[in-house]
Amino acid sequence: MRTAFTDLAGVEHPITLIANALGTPPPGLVTRAKQEGVAVAALVGQPKHAVRQLAAGVDLLIAQGTEAGGHTGTIATMVLTPEIVQLAEGRPVLAAGGIASGRQMAAALALGADGVWCGSVWLSSAEDVANTATKDKFLAATSSDTLRSPTRTGKPARQLRSAWHDEWERPNSPPPLPMPLQPLLVSEAWQRIDAAAEAGHEGALRLESFFIGQVVGSLRAVRPAAEITRQIIADCEQRIAELGGML
Amino acid sequence: MRTAFTDLAGVEHPITLIANALGTPPPGLVTRAKQEGVAVAALVGQPKHAVRQLAAGVDLLIAQGTEAGGHTGTIATMVLTPEIVQLAEGRPVLAAGGIASGRQMAAALALGADGVWCGSVWLSSAEDVANTATKDKFLAATSSDTLRSPTRTGKPARQLRSAWHDEWERPNSPPPLPMPLQPLLVSEAWQRIDAAAEAGHEGALRLESFFIGQVVGSLRAVRPAAEITRQIIADCEQRIAELGGML
Repeated sequence: MRTAFTDLAGVEHPITLIANALGTPPPGLVTRAKQEGVAVAALVGQPKHAVRQLAAGVDLLIAQGTEAGGHTGTIATMVLTPEIVQLAEGRPVLAAGGIASGRQMAAALALGADGVWCGSVWLSSAEDVANTATKDKFLAATSSDTLRSPTRTGKPARQLRSAWHDEWERPNSPPPLPMPLQPLLVSEAWQRIDAAAEAGHEGALRLESFFIGQVVGSLRAVRPAAEITRQIIADCEQRIAELGGML
Repeated sequence: MRTAFTDLAGVEHPITLIANALGTPPPGLVTRAKQEGVAVAALVGQPKHAVRQLAAGVDLLIAQGTEAGGHTGTIATMVLTPEIVQLAEGRPVLAAGGIASGRQMAAALALGADGVWCGSVWLSSAEDVANTATKDKFLAATSSDTLRSPTRTGKPARQLRSAWHDEWERPNSPPPLPMPLQPLLVSEAWQRIDAAAEAGHEGALRLESFFIGQVVGSLRAVRPAAEITRQIIADCEQRIAELGGML
């Protein structure tokens, strides 16, 4: 069943899933989604978030570890996933954070997840709309090149470390503002950085960054999303078969 | 083959493995160990550490993720393990960090590890010598209750968060000293905290802490080490069998 929530926030496409990334969904949204047969998911970074989301009526949980890109907590996927699976009491749980390969997907399933929720790996897909300057930096980066920083959104979010962070971390730099003031402060600057980096400006290329998880170190080429997906699934199945052979 | 390195640092027991936790082993130690048939291992938190350790001649690598207790880097086990397995080119790799259950062991094997290296879970063993005050705090803690802090050793090490860290983080507190000066500064204070906490002193109980990983949230009871080990292995085998059934 696919419903168009055309009255909500300019959504024009039929919806099959609403995923909440920061906080619990408003009760009206959950009620409406249930009436329309639309599943409601929530990303959680701590067990206490899962308790709140289940109380709010979400249908499935996404356990997002600290290694994920964007807004993350501090608990790693290896530790968080089994905790959320236990709290979910049979509701589906997807694991997120650190998953860009079939072996990592197999590990997530071993932890008890029903599936995986990938983000960073799609930034290496041909379909992704990020500019070339950003993608080139991702392909050159290692797993040590990310950090959780509040300097873009006002809340800690994992992103590629760049000269931007060096500037904000200087002893005489002001602390970032809380959400939503920090994005209001820096979004225009980021539009200029992105445009100048894409035009090849050296300073802008040093500043250039975007949200990405620690798996950035494993991204080596831009490939079609369908090819990435097929390889993750095939490698996951192969790894599970190999594990079975160890018994 | 088991050799007594009785001339080295007061070691009186036959050795089967030498594991280096901070930096590469001295060349003389590697040469001697190879002559005596003693395996040399190294804990690594970044791919570049693995490159250095392999150049130094270590026989096996332990990929230790940020979720581990003690001195850790920032890369999570989910991301680090496959990177180290790839660099090891067939040498054995153990995964460490976030592993205290059979499902977590199965996940580590799925990531390509040949085995696991557990630390925190032994702090919940009956054989462990930590004081009762510390163990009680571990059993009551959640996965959110650890942090990486340099306030004990001078280098970032994951430990249970306590009033100790609140004090060091006050705006007017001095920064911790580098290793090895910080342990010289605080080790006597820690002896007093441990003794007073064990005697039930309220302030000391608030300060009490020790090195532990994020799996602390899954420790619920003190059990014999043999029982912990047997359960991890049995649950790992069961989970691998369950995964096979999904294919």
